[in-house]
Amino acid sequence: MALDDCEELLTIGVDLGGTSLRIAAYVAGSGVVDSTTLRTRLEAGPLAVVDDMCEAIENLLGRHLEGRELAGIGVGSPGPLELPAGRLHLPPNLPGWDRFPLLHEMEKRLHRPVILEGDANVAALAEFALGQGKALGVDSLCMLTLGTGVGNGLILNGKLWHGATGMGGEAGHMTIYPDGPLCGCGNHGCLEACASATALVKAAEGMVKGGKARGLARLMEKNGKLTARDLAEAAQLGDADAHSLFSETGRALGICLAGLINILNLPLYVIGGGVAKSWELLSPTMFEELERRSYVYALTAPGRVAARGMSCGGTLVLPALLGADAGLLGACILPLQNAGVADRV
Amino acid sequence: MALDDCEELLTIGVDLGGTSLRIAAYVAGSGVVDSTTLRTRLEAGPLAVVDDMCEAIENLLGRHLEGRELAGIGVGSPGPLELPAGRLHLPPNLPGWDRFPLLHEMEKRLHRPVILEGDANVAALAEFALGQGKALGVDSLCMLTLGTGVGNGLILNGKLWHGATGMGGEAGHMTIYPDGPLCGCGNHGCLEACASATALVKAAEGMVKGGKARGLARLMEKNGKLTARDLAEAAQLGDADAHSLFSETGRALGICLAGLINILNLPLYVIGGGVAKSWELLSPTMFEELERRSYVYALTAPGRVAARGMSCGGTLVLPALLGADAGLLGACILPLQNAGVADRV
Repeated sequence: MALDDCEELLTIGVDLGGTSLRIAAYVAGSGVVDSTTLRTRLEAGPLAVVDDMCEAIENLLGRHLEGRELAGIGVGSPGPLELPAGRLHLPPNLPGWDRFPLLHEMEKRLHRPVILEGDANVAALAEFALGQGKALGVDSLCMLTLGTGVGNGLILNGKLWHGATGMGGEAGHMTIYPDGPLCGCGNHGCLEACASATALVKAAEGMVKGGKARGLARLMEKNGKLTARDLAEAAQLGDADAHSLFSETGRALGICLAGLINILNLPLYVIGGGVAKSWELLSPTMFEELERRSYVYALTAPGRVAARGMSCGGTLVLPALLGADAGLLGACILPLQNAGVADRV
Repeated sequence: MALDDCEELLTIGVDLGGTSLRIAAYVAGSGVVDSTTLRTRLEAGPLAVVDDMCEAIENLLGRHLEGRELAGIGVGSPGPLELPAGRLHLPPNLPGWDRFPLLHEMEKRLHRPVILEGDANVAALAEFALGQGKALGVDSLCMLTLGTGVGNGLILNGKLWHGATGMGGEAGHMTIYPDGPLCGCGNHGCLEACASATALVKAAEGMVKGGKARGLARLMEKNGKLTARDLAEAAQLGDADAHSLFSETGRALGICLAGLINILNLPLYVIGGGVAKSWELLSPTMFEELERRSYVYALTAPGRVAARGMSCGGTLVLPALLGADAGLLGACILPLQNAGVADRV
């Protein structure tokens, strides 16, 4: 598809989640101009969800396509995804969608080409094109999103790396502690089982049940349950147990990142998601592990590069600039990247 | 440089090691036509080693360049390397070479362009262009070389991935067991500290010193020391302790590979080096860990892909086809890859 340089480019982005379905109309150079949020009707089955999604897309196109050129429709979907076929395989967050040909069903309804990618991959793309990647002008980055689970996306030489079968970028399931907590994927000690919001809360509940962490026990009694946000507030107010939970999260994250830095030697690693908002709580132990466990980091950390007389850039590990919208924004700009007009985002 | 399609292409490849210096003349399409091995005179300092190397290169050029076109000179060097500057930084296997501008010193003597890469990267390139990668026709692979240390190289979309500063491909220093054995890099529990020939021997010596492993103790007494080859022979003859050492090696390797598969989702992972010759001893536990710890592998293992109706290729983990010459061969073909005539290797 050759896109006209003069015309305004429209894209549609879809953030398909297990709970909600967010759809936006995006004008290149301007941003999101309209959006809709629907409940994901999981109980009605995948075909009904696709119907909902396509109806909302058609509505947005009806309202915003006039006088503009459609660059494409981008969808960020939970994985595992099979690409280029565009099918899901045993997705833990979309029960009943095993082998569902999402891409085919969407294109059948819309009669337009759809671009499908993993949800963590599109979030990485957004951070690359509109967040820290843009701010620093790098050509590659790795993003880890510490939320309910841990998402991961890689941009290598300006392009999303989705791997041979579309399932790349799953550092959230890298083993950190081989005998660590059970993960939803069936493995033990994955980053997701050690550094997600879910893992933080589980670890806190474990402390409370074990008769430790009296401050957190009181908080749990008062609120009925614990959330990652509660824990962050408690840690900031000086609760030593809550603080140690974030230190341990930083440690697991640091072990994972040390591996990624040694393997990939990228210029930038971005940490997003709700847990990353507690940057000052988790980053000290994270950086400690990076220094200990990655000699590539130890040689190329900020300041180190210049001191050693290297002419190349160093290794940066930074919190994300974009918030919870990263996935939706990434889906919106996916068609621009695919059409080779990434400079027009 | 535009290379003539008709003329025979010559390259020079150098495998710079801490013990020996191997230099070969390579004719594209035919292979190595001549080679020299020298001792690496570490005690004489880096400039003397470069003198030796360049003299040997000039000799080979004098004998083989006539009637041929020189595609370039490729060098595989121990790391950490800073690229594109071509300098070493605190290389553990070349003491006294910190900040040595290897590329500059070679080009100054040879008056010809030299291409420098990490030694494990060039071995991966050889396996890609002449070994398992060629046999299977894949466009990307990850190679792990289990020798004295553990080398790693990545080929992504047909090209060596050397990272932002030239230090990529160090999965040998991925943390497998956070509290595991001390590694030469200063970290604990690196793959290199758990799955190299050195690690195998250390673990065996530890068993013997601890009063366990009576068969290995007898072997050690008889031979004066233990080698990885001794251990492989003992395991093949049914020594349960030697067997368990290879099982543990396979387990560490499997944990590392599970991470790499989840992150990169490549079509092929190749295991080379002396330890990998004991494939039948270490691969059962390796595959066990892959199934447990990588859901990407569990979905895309051989046979699994077709059973799930996927149209894409699966994930293969195989022993290397090339032996100890992989590094030298890789250095020889590096100039062909860089000049965009990789099809003429």
